[in-house]
Amino acid sequence: MSLQFFPDGRFRHFLSLEDVPHAALEKLLESARELRADALGGTALRQHLLGKTVCNLFFENSTRTRSSFLLAAQRLGADVFTFDASTSSGKKGETDIDTLKNLEAMGVNAFVIRHSENGAVAKLAEAAGPGTCVINAGDGRHQHPTQGLLDMLSIREFKGSDFSSLKILIAGDIKHSRVARSDLNALRTLGAAEIRVCGPASLLPTDGTIDGCKRFEDLDQAIQGVDVVMMLRLQRERMEEGLINSLDGYFRDYGLTQKRLALAKHDAIVMHPGPMNRGVEIADEVADGPQSIILPQVSNGVAVRMAVLKALLA
Amino acid sequence: MSLQFFPDGRFRHFLSLEDVPHAALEKLLESARELRADALGGTALRQHLLGKTVCNLFFENSTRTRSSFLLAAQRLGADVFTFDASTSSGKKGETDIDTLKNLEAMGVNAFVIRHSENGAVAKLAEAAGPGTCVINAGDGRHQHPTQGLLDMLSIREFKGSDFSSLKILIAGDIKHSRVARSDLNALRTLGAAEIRVCGPASLLPTDGTIDGCKRFEDLDQAIQGVDVVMMLRLQRERMEEGLINSLDGYFRDYGLTQKRLALAKHDAIVMHPGPMNRGVEIADEVADGPQSIILPQVSNGVAVRMAVLKALLA
Amino acid sequence: MSLQFFPDGRFRHFLSLEDVPHAALEKLLESARELRADALGGTALRQHLLGKTVCNLFFENSTRTRSSFLLAAQRLGADVFTFDASTSSGKKGETDIDTLKNLEAMGVNAFVIRHSENGAVAKLAEAAGPGTCVINAGDGRHQHPTQGLLDMLSIREFKGSDFSSLKILIAGDIKHSRVARSDLNALRTLGAAEIRVCGPASLLPTDGTIDGCKRFEDLDQAIQGVDVVMMLRLQRERMEEGLINSLDGYFRDYGLTQKRLALAKHDAIVMHPGPMNRGVEIADEVADGPQSIILPQVSNGVAVRMAVLKALLA
Repeated sequence: MSLQFFPDGRFRHFLSLEDVPHAALEKLLESARELRADALGGTALRQHLLGKTVCNLFFENSTRTRSSFLLAAQRLGADVFTFDASTSSGKKGETDIDTLKNLEAMGVNAFVIRHSENGAVAKLAEAAGPGTCVINAGDGRHQHPTQGLLDMLSIREFKGSDFSSLKILIAGDIKHSRVARSDLNALRTLGAAEIRVCGPASLLPTDGTIDGCKRFEDLDQAIQGVDVVMMLRLQRERMEEGLINSLDGYFRDYGLTQKRLALAKHDAIVMHPGPMNRGVEIADEVADGPQSIILPQVSNGVAVRMAVLKALLA
Repeated sequence: MSLQFFPDGRFRHFLSLEDVPHAALEKLLESARELRADALGGTALRQHLLGKTVCNLFFENSTRTRSSFLLAAQRLGADVFTFDASTSSGKKGETDIDTLKNLEAMGVNAFVIRHSENGAVAKLAEAAGPGTCVINAGDGRHQHPTQGLLDMLSIREFKGSDFSSLKILIAGDIKHSRVARSDLNALRTLGAAEIRVCGPASLLPTDGTIDGCKRFEDLDQAIQGVDVVMMLRLQRERMEEGLINSLDGYFRDYGLTQKRLALAKHDAIVMHPGPMNRGVEIADEVADGPQSIILPQVSNGVAVRMAVLKALLA
Repeated sequence: MSLQFFPDGRFRHFLSLEDVPHAALEKLLESARELRADALGGTALRQHLLGKTVCNLFFENSTRTRSSFLLAAQRLGADVFTFDASTSSGKKGETDIDTLKNLEAMGVNAFVIRHSENGAVAKLAEAAGPGTCVINAGDGRHQHPTQGLLDMLSIREFKGSDFSSLKILIAGDIKHSRVARSDLNALRTLGAAEIRVCGPASLLPTDGTIDGCKRFEDLDQAIQGVDVVMMLRLQRERMEEGLINSLDGYFRDYGLTQKRLALAKHDAIVMHPGPMNRGVEIADEVADGPQSIILPQVSNGVAVRMAVLKALLA
């Protein structure tokens, strides 16, 4: 049995979208959709997690995801605090598991964990006590399941819940992207008609991640007729690693401009997990244009994190 | 129409004291005076901003001002969190506006923003959506309007609300001071009888800031017979920039000692925006003496920040 | 009269276990024991400190102790915030007392203070106003009284409240340990039958701290027949200072292994204040073994901090 489910199929932890069945995924998305009306403020949902404690446990820095989880937990009535284990003072030579077990002993009910290593969050979930749940807020290049979930909720919001008619393109640094991996899992589960991936060969994974996808190295070809364009953030370190030659060259070949976007369906939507590198992977005109749903994605992020917290804790 | 007012004269944002009319300023001060009784604790005011979210968005470090806004918002019942955009992890190559728009999309109702650049907070306010308000917590050398407001509330508390009989001295590094600029705006609006400024020539602005003020380079002359002495913090970097020769020399010429204070009116009050450099711009005997209202200023800071939050959000 | 008591014997501050009378210590432990059932979550205790403000004021970094106090205060209904005065931005050239007085002027009712200097917290308590209380969260090598208290609560939980039958060993870097000093104070007050201390000569204090204790340099001898083994964390800087030769050598001579633990009473308990250096002062098999009460200590930490906050503020 997977680490993230109870024998009866309910979520025990929330670690990956890889083995989440269609029905469970739909149920989470439906719950997020219902919560959305009250997700951005107000006090309507404060009773759900009253008296529960959520700890943002970050072994790798994150400010945006942390804020989103903080607001989601707070608006459900939970107490939330951050433990920054990314600094030497936070570490103090302690093992990651000891850090988690100590905080658990203080009465933490759910941990939201980000870690730079693939699989590190699952290892911490294995160490958690029976009453404690763990949510993966991003581990290495492996998974970022709440981002995957919010992306699906956003597609549903703008394109409807039938994915079988949608052609979806994921473009950019797929090789190093936990967002892409979670999105690919979810898109397959929801039955997307066609999934395309596009990037320079140096940034396309060869580990099976994109099996079954249509693989492109030319963005102008890849984008033809798609319904959804999901752009990925390019980490500047890829240039230092020699995986790309220059940011200008990357933008020329793989940046999403209005001209390129015109090759997609006329009502295609543009997504980005943020933070954006404007002028690197996306042009201002597209980021701020009428087809961009980048900010609604962020709003949906609070709602899906609420849905996950509620599924695990309420 | 100014960015910070609605057409009907209510505050839309709170960015600067420069164009705040007399009546609006008095109304804010009166609201702060009323809130003061419950500003420092208790639960009497918790209903005002229940369900609202306030984000302390700091592009430049601040711990004191941030704490003051945090407590003000919390005691009005709001949810408050800090987003530190002053670190590389906070920035991540994102534009300031994208950072704000992302947090806004998570359901932030008010941003309290500090920035190192003049006018940067107003630019962010322009980018804010219709339901979002922005409070300037200090931008470059430009404005620190809640500090100006708390200074006025403190003068009213100890000297009464009729400023037309008051001689007020602002002494120190006026050139680089956003506090001085906000204070000067408010003092003019409230009709102070006489405003004096004093500092070494290298630290007095030549940009019109002190037009209409009596300008002094000799503190012993400037302080003669004043009712209020507002000392400014001297940033140690002024020495590295060659604007002053030494901290000892600065204290000798521009430090407020008991002997110098004796040249002011016998019941003059001494103010300082903090944090103090004791032995640089102010002597211990004065900072801790009976004429100092430096700590009441801090208490008034919580009350004025409540008044501003309430004016914008309630 | 001690700084930490009112004339009537109630706590004014909580600074040290050195002069806490037996009855006062028992009363605190009893209060913590009662609070324990609701200390790790829920909303049963939220009325106790409603409307009060607690400030975690850290002049030296701490993440674990800070989290424990945060949760304790929050679950009693207080507003809690952290002021990090350990960074240059936090300091800004201000004196420690000015930092405290400023925060006090914002309406802080209790300060939880950690400082790297012996006695620094007591000096801040002297500067606090009549309505403000100060809790020592660790000052230099001097005291860490809530850790001492939680250690006593943990011994009581597993060994009963009669200390007169208990042989207790404290092992490791006693010289530099504020935890050991607070534990020794409390163990004497509670009338422990025998207190042993053990460590290399370079890490045993010669300042009177261990007067009346049985002193050992050989851990195999020291541990014979004891009921309680309290291991101390070894700071890695002790090696740089030349006080120990190597971490491996330290573990060989002073690390608590299962083999060594077998020399203690068969039902002896093992304690550690955390964070642990596994393989330095303690072996995995012991840290995770059935005699370890290290995690219950952490849980008791929340309860004793609640008891202290309640004694001072409620």
